[in-house]
Amino acid sequence: MITPEIEKLLLGKNFASFATLMNDGSPHVAPTWIDYDGHYVLINTAADRIKEKNVRHDKRIALSIPNESNPYEMVTIRGIVDEITEENADMHIDKLAKRYLGLDKYPFRSPTEKRIIIKIRPVKVFHQKPPS
Amino acid sequence: MITPEIEKLLLGKNFASFATLMNDGSPHVAPTWIDYDGHYVLINTAADRIKEKNVRHDKRIALSIPNESNPYEMVTIRGIVDEITEENADMHIDKLAKRYLGLDKYPFRSPTEKRIIIKIRPVKVFHQKPPS
Repeated sequence: MITPEIEKLLLGKNFASFATLMNDGSPHVAPTWIDYDGHYVLINTAADRIKEKNVRHDKRIALSIPNESNPYEMVTIRGIVDEITEENADMHIDKLAKRYLGLDKYPFRSPTEKRIIIKIRPVKVFHQKPPS
Repeated sequence: MITPEIEKLLLGKNFASFATLMNDGSPHVAPTWIDYDGHYVLINTAADRIKEKNVRHDKRIALSIPNESNPYEMVTIRGIVDEITEENADMHIDKLAKRYLGLDKYPFRSPTEKRIIIKIRPVKVFHQKPPS
């Protein structure tokens, strides 16, 4: 389902839009960094944010990831949150800071925040290739 | 609710991520051009696409619009679709082609497609300003 071309988008410096469901079932969407571990699509967020609350309440999510260098190429993913974990989340956000910002340490952390990784299993994947 | 700074984002060359609800209540998200008429946020799409089907079934939507020239500034909007209309939709997509592509006519139209405008009433608006 995740072809090498899609994997390249997920591992590039591209922002994802992450759609989740509010308690009342209405949609919420916010931009986020993204990663892929060969099996799960990964989102790293601070605990207790709306993203986490929403996926704890309803595991159904959607993502769209346009290619930063060509917005007419994109992948959309509908999927299910299989796991939410603190394990390696601090290391992981620093890895993403390196990719997205070129920094060794994630610079936006507040002293009290706890990072978590949201692990998403892709269910439907659509790749819109750039017009050739 | 829509401050002049937010209006600037809505009228810029920025892509929106448009989240809607599938028939089963799960979220869907896709990138789209965007416009604002001083009252409604406007999305122009071809009739019968998934976006239209979803908003005809459930009027609750969400948008996120990052500033193309600074992805750490963005606005997120949760809203309600008040109207779906064909009126002026052909003229409107050409106007957006001018803004986003610099072309007088929208170049991607298929001969049979019918354009529609989805009019969104903002309900919750959040503006994340760029770190100063």
